[in-house]
Amino acid sequence: MNIKDIAKLAQVGVSTVSRVLNNHPDVKESTRQKIVEIIKESNYIPNNSARILKQNNTKNIGILVKGVFNPFFSQMTNVIGNIINENGYTMIVRQNDYNIYQEVDTLIAFIKEKRLQGVICLGGNFIDITDDSFKEINVPIVLTSVNTVSKQGKEYYSSIGIDNIKSAYDATIYLINKGHKNIALILGEANDMGVSLWRLEGYKKALEEKGIGVDNSLVVSGGYSSKGAYKETIELLKQRKDITAIFALSDIMAMGAAKAILDSGLRIPKDISIVGFDGMDESEYYNPSLTTVKQPQKLMAKMSIDLLISQINGKEGNKHTLLDTKLIERDSTTNL
Amino acid sequence: MNIKDIAKLAQVGVSTVSRVLNNHPDVKESTRQKIVEIIKESNYIPNNSARILKQNNTKNIGILVKGVFNPFFSQMTNVIGNIINENGYTMIVRQNDYNIYQEVDTLIAFIKEKRLQGVICLGGNFIDITDDSFKEINVPIVLTSVNTVSKQGKEYYSSIGIDNIKSAYDATIYLINKGHKNIALILGEANDMGVSLWRLEGYKKALEEKGIGVDNSLVVSGGYSSKGAYKETIELLKQRKDITAIFALSDIMAMGAAKAILDSGLRIPKDISIVGFDGMDESEYYNPSLTTVKQPQKLMAKMSIDLLISQINGKEGNKHTLLDTKLIERDSTTNL
Repeated sequence: MNIKDIAKLAQVGVSTVSRVLNNHPDVKESTRQKIVEIIKESNYIPNNSARILKQNNTKNIGILVKGVFNPFFSQMTNVIGNIINENGYTMIVRQNDYNIYQEVDTLIAFIKEKRLQGVICLGGNFIDITDDSFKEINVPIVLTSVNTVSKQGKEYYSSIGIDNIKSAYDATIYLINKGHKNIALILGEANDMGVSLWRLEGYKKALEEKGIGVDNSLVVSGGYSSKGAYKETIELLKQRKDITAIFALSDIMAMGAAKAILDSGLRIPKDISIVGFDGMDESEYYNPSLTTVKQPQKLMAKMSIDLLISQINGKEGNKHTLLDTKLIERDSTTNL
Repeated sequence: MNIKDIAKLAQVGVSTVSRVLNNHPDVKESTRQKIVEIIKESNYIPNNSARILKQNNTKNIGILVKGVFNPFFSQMTNVIGNIINENGYTMIVRQNDYNIYQEVDTLIAFIKEKRLQGVICLGGNFIDITDDSFKEINVPIVLTSVNTVSKQGKEYYSSIGIDNIKSAYDATIYLINKGHKNIALILGEANDMGVSLWRLEGYKKALEEKGIGVDNSLVVSGGYSSKGAYKETIELLKQRKDITAIFALSDIMAMGAAKAILDSGLRIPKDISIVGFDGMDESEYYNPSLTTVKQPQKLMAKMSIDLLISQINGKEGNKHTLLDTKLIERDSTTNL
């Protein structure tokens, strides 16, 4: 009994049986059940060596994730994982939280050791990319939500992300236009040389353009957690009674900061306005619902894996894409 | 130049170089940097075939995840992933959201196709386990946070989870003892035959024991999302003005339900008390902070992978462990 026999018995094409075996969602439920029944009755086990060889040894896609405790990346990994499954590839995940400075080396070792056909890097700084970094690597690399400060070697990899400077600039201008001047910024990590750095730049640019000037004592780091942002905000509000707005670089941190504002006996947005970043579902259901910079999270994930697979199949070359963000105004911000 | 030469130059043991190559955290930072420098200078690339063979073909641990959009599982995957990396294994992730009824088949195909040395299943129902399901499988299987209704074949796999009946029973008793009688329950999914089913049983048991009786119109499904729970709660509160407490089977859903209560013009906890489940960090920073049933999430993840690796090394047999949960009382619940 082989896959052709199953297809014949089920009166469907071989490709339909294959889709069922690979858990591809694009099969009618009644057809799926019929095929599964036939497979069960026939004791057919889809583990012939050709299939194993094909799936195990030559179709590995790697995901190198930085900041694994960030639910923003977890959700993107899930979107990517579904598309990898649908296309019959194997997803190999490596977490990269221990390495801050040798990200390129880690990536190259990952590709070689796992014989990857392609790799997506979610997050990270990659400040160490040089013109030669990926010259010898002949599989496609997509850096997603990375925004490295390095300008080198761009022809050897692809990137998909948002314009972090502009996004943070727009959110800061939005608060300034509402009359706020003393706007605190909660960064992810103080030594973050990628995303946080660009967003900090956008924040500074807005303040300087509007003639407000940057007060470094208003910039703190919340470690991308609610808890970290809560503690920093409690301290900040004790020291600085003149803060009227807080811009947190993730929704998770915005929730912690919001709670700190309330626990300090202040009101949102009457006393202090707050803006988050990411546009996670939960931000809408916070009390009050949070104004936030929405990233096209699922689109970014889908474009990354679609591009990678297209490159693996030789259909596309390297490219660099910046997607738009959108400021969603909710109940946590008001005019001063 | 091989790993021994590197070790000699760095004046450390081969195992230390190996730990650096494998991103093991347990290396002094100064030693790590020294080794990395020597590796860079020597152009040593750790991709000899023995290493690839060892790492790629024989050290694969699979993670089969159900409910990939549940941040609870994402966080557990991260804990597991770090320990897999530290031990020099490769983590292969497969998502299992399309299959509700053939979970055993999916698991077996996953093990065979990827030549796994062991597998952890995060979530899922596995109602189809029989005495023969895993009889022929000679690699360890750990079902984590699964709680299958099947009593069969337990000698062929391990499980680590919480006592879902007792946890839900305790939370419901807690609300009843505060004087609540009309307690709504927000399930994950209506057709969930695992975790939700057990928790529903605990909820019913508490109500019946206290002579209150179960009103099925108070049981709804929020689809494990804030959005789903929000919608269901808005509708429920329109129809039933007599509800005084809501028990949501995840913190994410509790947030959605809480927002629905507030948007319906009611107060928390003065008009309606709310209890979540999971004990995620964010529940503490909600406004008001949410009373919740805390699961030992990280411990559960760590125990699962430690057990699996111990089993792979022949040091332990199959076992079934239930961990305790803890009701954390915060500001979202009060006496009626």
